[in-house]
Amino acid sequence: MSNRLPVQALTREAFEPFGEVIDSAGQVAETINAGHTQKWGDLATIDTQAGGGRTALHRYRSEPVRLPFTVEVMERHPLGSQGFIPLHGRPFLVVVAPAGSEPGPEAIRAFLTDGRQGVNYHRGTWHHYQLTLDQPGDYLVIDRTGPGLNLDEHRLAQPLIIERAE
Amino acid sequence: MSNRLPVQALTREAFEPFGEVIDSAGQVAETINAGHTQKWGDLATIDTQAGGGRTALHRYRSEPVRLPFTVEVMERHPLGSQGFIPLHGRPFLVVVAPAGSEPGPEAIRAFLTDGRQGVNYHRGTWHHYQLTLDQPGDYLVIDRTGPGLNLDEHRLAQPLIIERAE
Repeated sequence: MSNRLPVQALTREAFEPFGEVIDSAGQVAETINAGHTQKWGDLATIDTQAGGGRTALHRYRSEPVRLPFTVEVMERHPLGSQGFIPLHGRPFLVVVAPAGSEPGPEAIRAFLTDGRQGVNYHRGTWHHYQLTLDQPGDYLVIDRTGPGLNLDEHRLAQPLIIERAE
Repeated sequence: MSNRLPVQALTREAFEPFGEVIDSAGQVAETINAGHTQKWGDLATIDTQAGGGRTALHRYRSEPVRLPFTVEVMERHPLGSQGFIPLHGRPFLVVVAPAGSEPGPEAIRAFLTDGRQGVNYHRGTWHHYQLTLDQPGDYLVIDRTGPGLNLDEHRLAQPLIIERAE
């Protein structure tokens, strides 16, 4: 098989095996605060309590990668979900494989967000670190902190190449 | 006493009795992801597990209020923290009183953020709903969902007036 990894548009349906798309678009808002506020509630399943864990909030600033980009290493967090909410408003790449044993190249998918969307990886979903395009980008990150080793890495036997973002 | 509520600039020190200022400015970043990412870690204490709770993520869109604004009702969430991270990059007002019995006017403080800062109310901190200025503003909100009643409201015996934001 080719070692080229095609990129597809991120949708809720396509991303379901890996996690959730964090996006209020298309969701129904509730009106609260005496009419002052629209609330899009419960946008992601924050799964952080395994093994005595708790939720942590971080800010990441990612340097952009250049295309073509070679995917060599995937990682996973076996004890909790991890969510990324872009503050930069630009599309970014999401490279994932389902939770479970170390992924072969056929299990790996690449998605391009629409600039609004964030992602929340299920506990154990294999993923590449944040692949920001064009210029540095900031993200809010919501994940688990607590006891236990919450990081595994897997070096691909055959690297995959992302040639273009779309 | 006057029923005017003065507004002060939000600082970590001044906000300590009420919660945390969510801001990476002045914090030390860690370099991760093979040098691609700066991480400002653990920006807030997300306190959501009391009474079988879990962390929830929402998006709020707040209509602006006009000054002078009359503070009439405060609320609190007795079972968990609540964090607001502005996505609009503009200063907003934060009106709070310490956790504990229903606040008298002397216990209430008003702060103005600097546009970058978010806030994380401690469990039980009395606060006004989000007071956005000038134009509608979006926020990410991180709080608790789960069993139990997590909202109390208190109508002030003597309303307070915020005349100007600074």
